[in-house]
Order: sequence, then structure tokens, then C-alpha cells
Amino acid sequence: MAGTDKTRNQVLGPAPFVVLVNPQLGENIGTAARAMANFGLHELRLVSPRDGWPNDKALTSSSGANWIIERAAVHQSLTAAVEDASYVYATTARPRGMTKEVITPEQAGRDMRARIARSERVGLLFGRERWGLNNDEVSLADIIVTAPVNPAFASLNIAQAVLLVGYEWYKLEAASLGQETPELAALDGPGLQTPDTRPATKEELFGFFDHLERELDAAGFFKTADKKPGMLRNIRNLYARAALTEQEVRSLRGMVASLTRAHERRKENEK
Amino acid sequence: MAGTDKTRNQVLGPAPFVVLVNPQLGENIGTAARAMANFGLHELRLVSPRDGWPNDKALTSSSGANWIIERAAVHQSLTAAVEDASYVYATTARPRGMTKEVITPEQAGRDMRARIARSERVGLLFGRERWGLNNDEVSLADIIVTAPVNPAFASLNIAQAVLLVGYEWYKLEAASLGQETPELAALDGPGLQTPDTRPATKEELFGFFDHLERELDAAGFFKTADKKPGMLRNIRNLYARAALTEQEVRSLRGMVASLTRAHERRKENEK
Repeated sequence: MAGTDKTRNQVLGPAPFVVLVNPQLGENIGTAARAMANFGLHELRLVSPRDGWPNDKALTSSSGANWIIERAAVHQSLTAAVEDASYVYATTARPRGMTKEVITPEQAGRDMRARIARSERVGLLFGRERWGLNNDEVSLADIIVTAPVNPAFASLNIAQAVLLVGYEWYKLEAASLGQETPELAALDGPGLQTPDTRPATKEELFGFFDHLERELDAAGFFKTADKKPGMLRNIRNLYARAALTEQEVRSLRGMVASLTRAHERRKENEK
Repeated sequence: MAGTDKTRNQVLGPAPFVVLVNPQLGENIGTAARAMANFGLHELRLVSPRDGWPNDKALTSSSGANWIIERAAVHQSLTAAVEDASYVYATTARPRGMTKEVITPEQAGRDMRARIARSERVGLLFGRERWGLNNDEVSLADIIVTAPVNPAFASLNIAQAVLLVGYEWYKLEAASLGQETPELAALDGPGLQTPDTRPATKEELFGFFDHLERELDAAGFFKTADKKPGMLRNIRNLYARAALTEQEVRSLRGMVASLTRAHERRKENEK
């Protein structure tokens, strides 16, 4: 299936960004970039690539998707890499023991398209070569994407995972561009009606999480230090599922602030 | 997306066979076999592989899809490789100047499934690394399969082409096997993974709402009486969207209780 038309320029339209978390080999970054280019994805973000950045092997193995490698952004943490997004998809090979919705690449493609049509910024997370994303990382995402794969041979490398999700995104994008594809089905995703507000950015959401954690710490909510990470993960997961708006995040912060000052009010009432 | 379940045996059910025409590098044969294994394809036919057969590199680069490499059949000509098939799909990157129907991998997936359900033998042709299938070879096929790909970056290697067509085949196969895919789960409801817990009953949820309202009232959160109904509605809406589990409702109640007693803890710490 070789056949790039070199007379065409890259069209860098609105598209999901791709986050590779702790990628190990430059080759894998390059082949992931190539898969992105196949399907019109162009914004690559790297969280602490093991071998540093820039990486010559990433460039040479991208098969000419130079513009993606050259513009890739490096972040020190996953939270920093996704903070401008309103919705984040975590790709995993297998269901996790986590209360989070799981969808297919096909469903993700539809959902991403609907969100981008509403000018949302959305991101796709891919884990390390060896063991994918850890549970904390998954808990920062809104939803899990898992491809239907032969359970007796489920290993997909990063580029292949990018390829499948990118393909499902592009199928619909191509259709909307009038490029000939068959699947012109209704594209209205599971969109929320958000009157007078907008989806919260991850920065706003993480700000709420930090605020809540600080106050719960002060209140002695986390009984033991070893239980705290799991409890925090569960809390993040439940709020992530709610797909909060910016206004709701402000309300939640207001609630937390009120509750922690409740005793002052009580004393006033007793006067 | 690593995650093969090694306790499962390969199921070698009826599936399309894959023909690689004049493959050059053993590595590409191996990675194509790996992509086949991901999606339950298991019969590989090679037409005059350049470097002979067997080929050690094919085996080592198949990432464990040994059964496909070891059973691969070598044919001297494409006609010999497809003679037992009733229908053959030629994959190409671009439309050819040929009067032949062109379909997408998705349409091919549906068509293959329908044919195999009627006990037809069907085959998928993939061309050489450098320049794909020639026109004579395409003319031996019944139909052309072309994936929607960014026209300005259309190069897919053989394994990626196998991956996309295999994926579209397996999506439907998995559904028909009743294999639990996220897609099927989604039809039954919100497709949540709920480990060790169950969805909260409305009674539990409303109990949390009452608790929260009581405490927010005590804390003076609702500034004016006329705003309170709307604020409460927004709060209920956001928690309703999260589809809370019973355990999460208990956590939320625990958080509210902790936060309202935070001052006691603070005083303790000050002692």
C-alpha cells in the first residue's frame, strides 16, 4: 500500500494530539509519528522520553513524517502534557480494575470528531513499550480505549495502537472532507449540552484535585499513607467520568471551601 | 497495548487467508504474521519470497506468532496461491486505472464475513514492499481494497496494511463470537468496569445528596434562598453523570464528613 502523493501538502487541521508516556526507543517514537501522519494527526507530545530529545532515530524511523518529530513537545509530567485538553483518552490493551468507561477505537473516533467539531482540545495517551500506562496515568484520563484484539495474541506495539485509533479518527474525517469513504453514518457523539459554559480544561480539573487532596489531607481523610494513592485514584476516576464543565469545577471548589469553613458558620449561628 | 493472555489457546477458525506477493525482507513477513495473529488470521501464503523459505528473521520478528510462520505455504505463482479461493481482495494504496470496484477495509470486513459464513474460501493479497501489486496481479483479484489514508502521507507498510484489514475483519468476528468487546458492553449500558462493587441505588445516591445539602446549608454555601434550587440541580446533575458506584457514594459521604470536621483536626494539630 505504498503511494504517497508528493505533490500534496500536509494539511494540519484540528485533530487530537498524541501523548507518548515515557517512550523508550527512538524507533518507536518515529514509527508512531509515521502512523500519525498516515491519518492526519500532527501534534506529538512526549512525557520524559527515556533517551532524551531530540533523538535522531526517531527522525530516521518516521519515514518522512519529519514535521511531526520536529515539532514534538517534551513535557516533564503527564499532567503538564494534557492540561490544555478538555477530554483525554487512555489506550490500554486490557480492561483495568477501574471504574471507568471503556470504548472501542471506532467509538473513540466518533467521539473525538464530535468534540473537535465543538472546538474542544482532545488528547490520546499511549503507554510505554513494556507495560503501557500505569493506573495513576489512566486515572487522569476521561475514558479508556481498547481495541478488540485476539485475546490469545493481544500484543500491539505503540505504532500499531496509534495506527488503529488514528485510522478510526481519519475514517470519519475523510468522510467529512468529502473524501470517498463508505461510512457516512450519523456522527453526533455522546455530546453534552453545556449551556453558557464549556468543558473544564485538565488544568482546571487538576487544580480542583489538588485543592481537594490538600483539604482531605488536612482533615485526616486518608487514614493511612499506603491507602492514599488508591483512594485518590478512585476520586479522580469518579470526577473524570462526570466530564465536568468549567463552571462545575468552580462550584466543586466552592463546596470544598465552604465545607472546610463550616464550623465558623456554626459558631456564628450559635451566637 | 501489551497484554496477551498466555493461558488462552489460539483458535484457528475459518478466516481469510493472507497472500504476500514477492515479499522482500523476512522482517516484513514476520511483522505481517504478528498483525495477522492480532486479529485471528492464521493462514499465510507466500508467492516467491525473495530471500527463500524458511527464513529465520521472519520467525524472530513475528513476536511469537510462530504457528503462522511455521505453517506458511510457499507458492511459485499468484495464481497457484489463490486457486482454491472463491473471492480475492487486492489491497492497494491508490485507485488504479482499472475497471474494478474499490471498497474500504470496513466494507471488505463485512464482505469477507458474509462469504465465510457461506463457507467460501477468501484471500487477501498484499504486494511487495517497494511497489505493491502490479496490474496483472490486481486483475486476478475480484475487488480492490483501499484504506482511507491521508493522501499527502499514504505510505503503509505491509504489516500496517494487514493490521487494518485484519482489524476490520476481527471487529465483526469478535462480535459474532459473542466475545466481550467494549462495543457490545456499550450496547448493554454505559459499559463501565465496576470491580468489586455495584452501581449505587437511587436511595443511596439521594442519601448522599441530602447529606451534602444539609452540610452545605450549614456552611452557608447557598448564598440566597432563590439560587439554591438551581445550584442543587447542577450539583445533582454532575454527580448523576458520573454514574456512581455504591462504594463511591460512601467515599463521597466520607469526604463531606471529613471536610466538615477539618477544623477539629486542625486544632489538634495546633496543640
